[in-house]
Amino acid sequence: MAENETIRFGIIGCANIARKLARAIALAPNATLSAIASRSKQKANTFAAENQLPATVRIYGSYDEVVEDPGVDAVYIPLPTSLHVRWAVAAASKGKHVLVEKPAALDVAQLDLILEACESNGVQFMDGSMWLHHPRTAHMEQLLSLSHSTTVGPVQFIHSTSTMPVPPEFLENNIRVKPDLDGLGALGDLGWYCIGASLWAKSYNLPTTVTALPDITRNAAGVILSFTASLQWCQGQQPADQAVATVHCSFLSHTSMDLSLCGSNGSLHLKDFIIPYQETDASFDFTFGAKFVDLHIGWNVRPEEVHVDNELPQEALMVQELARLATSIRDCGSKPSSKWPEISRKTQLVVDAVRKSIEIGFKPVAL
Amino acid sequence: MAENETIRFGIIGCANIARKLARAIALAPNATLSAIASRSKQKANTFAAENQLPATVRIYGSYDEVVEDPGVDAVYIPLPTSLHVRWAVAAASKGKHVLVEKPAALDVAQLDLILEACESNGVQFMDGSMWLHHPRTAHMEQLLSLSHSTTVGPVQFIHSTSTMPVPPEFLENNIRVKPDLDGLGALGDLGWYCIGASLWAKSYNLPTTVTALPDITRNAAGVILSFTASLQWCQGQQPADQAVATVHCSFLSHTSMDLSLCGSNGSLHLKDFIIPYQETDASFDFTFGAKFVDLHIGWNVRPEEVHVDNELPQEALMVQELARLATSIRDCGSKPSSKWPEISRKTQLVVDAVRKSIEIGFKPVAL
Repeated sequence: MAENETIRFGIIGCANIARKLARAIALAPNATLSAIASRSKQKANTFAAENQLPATVRIYGSYDEVVEDPGVDAVYIPLPTSLHVRWAVAAASKGKHVLVEKPAALDVAQLDLILEACESNGVQFMDGSMWLHHPRTAHMEQLLSLSHSTTVGPVQFIHSTSTMPVPPEFLENNIRVKPDLDGLGALGDLGWYCIGASLWAKSYNLPTTVTALPDITRNAAGVILSFTASLQWCQGQQPADQAVATVHCSFLSHTSMDLSLCGSNGSLHLKDFIIPYQETDASFDFTFGAKFVDLHIGWNVRPEEVHVDNELPQEALMVQELARLATSIRDCGSKPSSKWPEISRKTQLVVDAVRKSIEIGFKPVAL
Repeated sequence: MAENETIRFGIIGCANIARKLARAIALAPNATLSAIASRSKQKANTFAAENQLPATVRIYGSYDEVVEDPGVDAVYIPLPTSLHVRWAVAAASKGKHVLVEKPAALDVAQLDLILEACESNGVQFMDGSMWLHHPRTAHMEQLLSLSHSTTVGPVQFIHSTSTMPVPPEFLENNIRVKPDLDGLGALGDLGWYCIGASLWAKSYNLPTTVTALPDITRNAAGVILSFTASLQWCQGQQPADQAVATVHCSFLSHTSMDLSLCGSNGSLHLKDFIIPYQETDASFDFTFGAKFVDLHIGWNVRPEEVHVDNELPQEALMVQELARLATSIRDCGSKPSSKWPEISRKTQLVVDAVRKSIEIGFKPVAL
């Protein structure tokens, strides 16, 4: 693709995660990094130098300059969550597509301001859930299809974790645990992935109720450092139509990114669902039709390790997908895809419900 | 060991699981099967023939005859849970050691009758949690030790499942889902394993609270077919002292036996914790010191698959352990070990608490 046909990205905020996205934009064949901004031009210059950005990238000392730049088609916003609504709405109102780091917003009311701004300006919205763009995820989706017999079948149980040990200084200084910047703490930062995975596994059917468990840790400022929650689906008439998801997230435990789900016919297991162990290949375990052998002294099958190759890392595939949609809007007059905003909004609704359940003493919250 | 020095077992009830235990008793070097009983002698004869029991095994048409048989040192009781207390107390009062299939009893009051009978008669008690006797379990225990630096560290999260799909006729006919025989249903039958594993991972410290989740399925008679529950430990002053376990059990899902636990330094994962995939070797995944590489585009380590060999299957090791304790009591005047009764009693206490939490509308129950 000729460079003038690519989607030109601007990055608003030089957070650490922006290094990964700058690289992803460079790797995506249909995207170009055109501009970056920090609150100080010096910090932006340092970011550009450290990440060896090409000289063509415009470097700004204010976020406004990216939003106003006519040479930017899409913005990536890795700012603290509390700032998402301001800058996403500003970018959308200037006709720029919006890729916002998770959690998308502090609550669904704020997210709706962003989504309405994107819709009324005809621009694409997407949140930064990179793992959804990995081909492993698509491969697992096939095994969740109900139209084949050799698949997991209706999913009845989902379990996921997102935990990482952080040094004490992180707990005091990091934006993800400051109430005025990222008031959702682990619920927004880590919970976004697990809640998103639970919804994904149920084909984005919203749960009927959400219940936080009486297991929560907060820092001195009240920001959530760890929590456990569950989602319940009671949608059908049959017992087998019920489903439940458990979610555990913590800044206080060893690194884990477990996702396991079990249906009527099989199960999927992976331990690196958010960030695969390696960039260019990944795997998951698929168990199908398991029974015990006679006398229950063993199993008839073992899990099959299913490998999935990917040429591009998942974050580059995410950028590529946003650029593909943006190109279609620009060149074909397409409407923005409703898929990604809907995924974000449902995830946010459940994040909000977990927070509410915590606030009301760990009681179930109906959705 | 000469046959007259072995511990002589009697089996009370020819349930399907008794086939596995008859084999285990034959495999254990310090145990001999001496007698079996069913409610009808014909059924007992059929069992003996189908399992090719030696001609030396005495075959009875009533449970009383095993209890009264002076040539029986220990009884294995695979009867429906509601009958455990009657026959375990009867056996203990005749000086026989007691191996009772799980769940140990319908509630802790009934279990205490059994334990008191065993204690006052100086006989050993043990429940049928076979997986606790697998060398894999001992190997993992070493990795849970807090006295080494390259271990999991204080366990902060535990997740376990025990699910198996059963045919519709099982739901109507099996003793495990009949209210007058096994009123605990999936909570007793499958939950015993997961609750036991949660306690095991926390070195048998009781949780401070137990909370059932509003996700429960019952059959027409009200017996639990699936449930989800959580255990909370809030024992220390530090956030990291908190721990939580989630447990999911179901007769309506594909077969799963997941156990994963995460501490401050590492994690353990296995998918076959109750019944290993194969009889004579097993493995688990151990992840230690995991971090993300620069830019968070992968991990610095992958899980290590730790293999553990065992010459005898876990159920034979369980029989061997009971026989070893019984021999020590007989030959050395030892007192029965308090370890196994305590494990059973704590497991039963948590089973009771889950049931109570369900009964009071999924509210936390303090222990």
